Amino acid sequence: MGRQQAVEAAILDRREVVNEAIDEDLPPDHPEDLYEASRYLLKAGGKRLRPTMLLLVAEALADVAPLSADYRDFPAVDDSTVDVLAAAVSVEIIQSFTLIHDDIMDDDEMRRGVPAVHETYGLSTAILAGDTLYSKAFERMLATGATPERSVRALSRLARTCTQICEGQSLDIGYENNPEITTGEYLEMIELKTAVLYAASASIPAILLGYEDAVDPLYGYGLDVGRAFQIQDDLLDLTTPTEKLGKQRGSDLIEDKQTLVTVHARQQGVDVEGLVDAESTDDVTEADIEAAVATLEEVGSIDHARETAREYVRSGKGRLQVLPDSEARDLLAGIADYLIERDY
Amino acid sequence: MGRQQAVEAAILDRREVVNEAIDEDLPPDHPEDLYEASRYLLKAGGKRLRPTMLLLVAEALADVAPLSADYRDFPAVDDSTVDVLAAAVSVEIIQSFTLIHDDIMDDDEMRRGVPAVHETYGLSTAILAGDTLYSKAFERMLATGATPERSVRALSRLARTCTQICEGQSLDIGYENNPEITTGEYLEMIELKTAVLYAASASIPAILLGYEDAVDPLYGYGLDVGRAFQIQDDLLDLTTPTEKLGKQRGSDLIEDKQTLVTVHARQQGVDVEGLVDAESTDDVTEADIEAAVATLEEVGSIDHARETAREYVRSGKGRLQVLPDSEARDLLAGIADYLIERDY
Repeated sequence: MGRQQAVEAAILDRREVVNEAIDEDLPPDHPEDLYEASRYLLKAGGKRLRPTMLLLVAEALADVAPLSADYRDFPAVDDSTVDVLAAAVSVEIIQSFTLIHDDIMDDDEMRRGVPAVHETYGLSTAILAGDTLYSKAFERMLATGATPERSVRALSRLARTCTQICEGQSLDIGYENNPEITTGEYLEMIELKTAVLYAASASIPAILLGYEDAVDPLYGYGLDVGRAFQIQDDLLDLTTPTEKLGKQRGSDLIEDKQTLVTVHARQQGVDVEGLVDAESTDDVTEADIEAAVATLEEVGSIDHARETAREYVRSGKGRLQVLPDSEARDLLAGIADYLIERDY
Repeated sequence: MGRQQAVEAAILDRREVVNEAIDEDLPPDHPEDLYEASRYLLKAGGKRLRPTMLLLVAEALADVAPLSADYRDFPAVDDSTVDVLAAAVSVEIIQSFTLIHDDIMDDDEMRRGVPAVHETYGLSTAILAGDTLYSKAFERMLATGATPERSVRALSRLARTCTQICEGQSLDIGYENNPEITTGEYLEMIELKTAVLYAASASIPAILLGYEDAVDPLYGYGLDVGRAFQIQDDLLDLTTPTEKLGKQRGSDLIEDKQTLVTVHARQQGVDVEGLVDAESTDDVTEADIEAAVATLEEVGSIDHARETAREYVRSGKGRLQVLPDSEARDLLAGIADYLIERDY
């Protein structure tokens, strides 16, 4: 099995485990409608990259063979054990909550190839489903069985992360239609909106399991690969066919979202706002998007974004030196590469 | 000073303290817009009943003279101290978050006499402001300096409470236009939507300060007075003039919300849905509301709701026996009375 296949297999294996755990930890409940809406997007799919990262970090820290230890009863640095799967479910639930609310704010109709939660259940239930997942995520993070000291620290990290995600989403919305945005402002925005949840996912297992010295380097690893992930996500919005993307290709251009590509292109003198002259995804053709992407490629903006993402991945992988040399550590490096090599 | 004045003065005194603490604990921040929207409703007023209750319970448990101890450095049952004001701010922030999201769901335009957050800042920023307050509330509850064991328990209570509030709001929405709702279903709904946050406010100080035996009775006190509060709130919607209420009088009837009054009236054979024949607050006159209320009074539904609220207050006050006989305990009994005597 080649390195890339090994990474993809590791992701798939843990996705299975996480999917089962989500079903266990977030069962259907009363009121039926609310829990159906809360579970809907989680059941619709997703690669589970953040919980996978969390589980792999735990395995690397404990220096155990991948998938050999019981995630529900995982060995901490001392004699205690921790349910790291509850923590993994927690970060995935946070991710799902933010997607539900973001889709309302961005008026996105599709997500993961299915209608968005607010399209299916209406605005009120979608807001409430997000709110329910929010507190459920905290409930799960409180249920790991870690020592109270470590639980409090993990909770603090999670709460702070959620605040930052809101700040990032607020900046993202505020930056729409704003051609003054600098590279620095864009990078701050994606750090808050996206990277901090990867950073939380990578560092929380170190907090819960008691590996103090690893917490900060792992947070840095998560930040770096999270930034790379978002840059790649922005690139995929431009380059992946609509069917594969699960939503309209080029929607960021249509919505005048700021990305590293558009900020760079503007610096090259491109009239970014004029690239796609449509108000909504209904008014746009594939040819319009093709032409816009061709322009962005010509001025080097696509390549610039790709190179920046690669740089973050290099930096992030360097921080993994804090972990013992292990198969799990190799897989964490591989996931960093995967994040910018994936084509959907 | 009579008993009622003493209670009102106690509420006003603590409101001042809580207002200052909110300003300290939730200062303006970056992004400016997001924090302005997050602070807007908190700055618009509110009686701060939940944080006041939390502070008074702390004073009663510690058996200190009201307002004599430093809330930021409050004596626990052992030698440690706790910032109970951070906990008080936390429950008020939760309350504010739920109001912001509820106003979106109910399409309410006014709150506390000012336009609702989504009317002032738009839907996206209002959703995000609520989400930001959500995590800020957890951050504050993690900042009390209580022992990790107690912090974890307080956090668990807060997270569970938030989940229940969402469940209650979901039931409330689901019950609109549903004439089949029973008294039991209505009571479950208000317990979740409203009473659990009072219960959390009353019991969390006992958790944080280490008074184990008082936790459950205080939770019961909060549940009872919280139920009474919601029943009174529903009554005030019918009986308080629009100017004083800060929003359209009778809006629950217009929106076909279920209340103890409407459930009871229906049992008396009243055609509740036909009482106010308007689709929105714009189509309704004061005379329409007057006539509807007269009918509800005639069949005894208003009195029935009043009596039920009184019964809960009696029950709640009984649970205060767990506290030492003190001025703070008397004030907590007085607040229970105040909740159903207030006229706005």
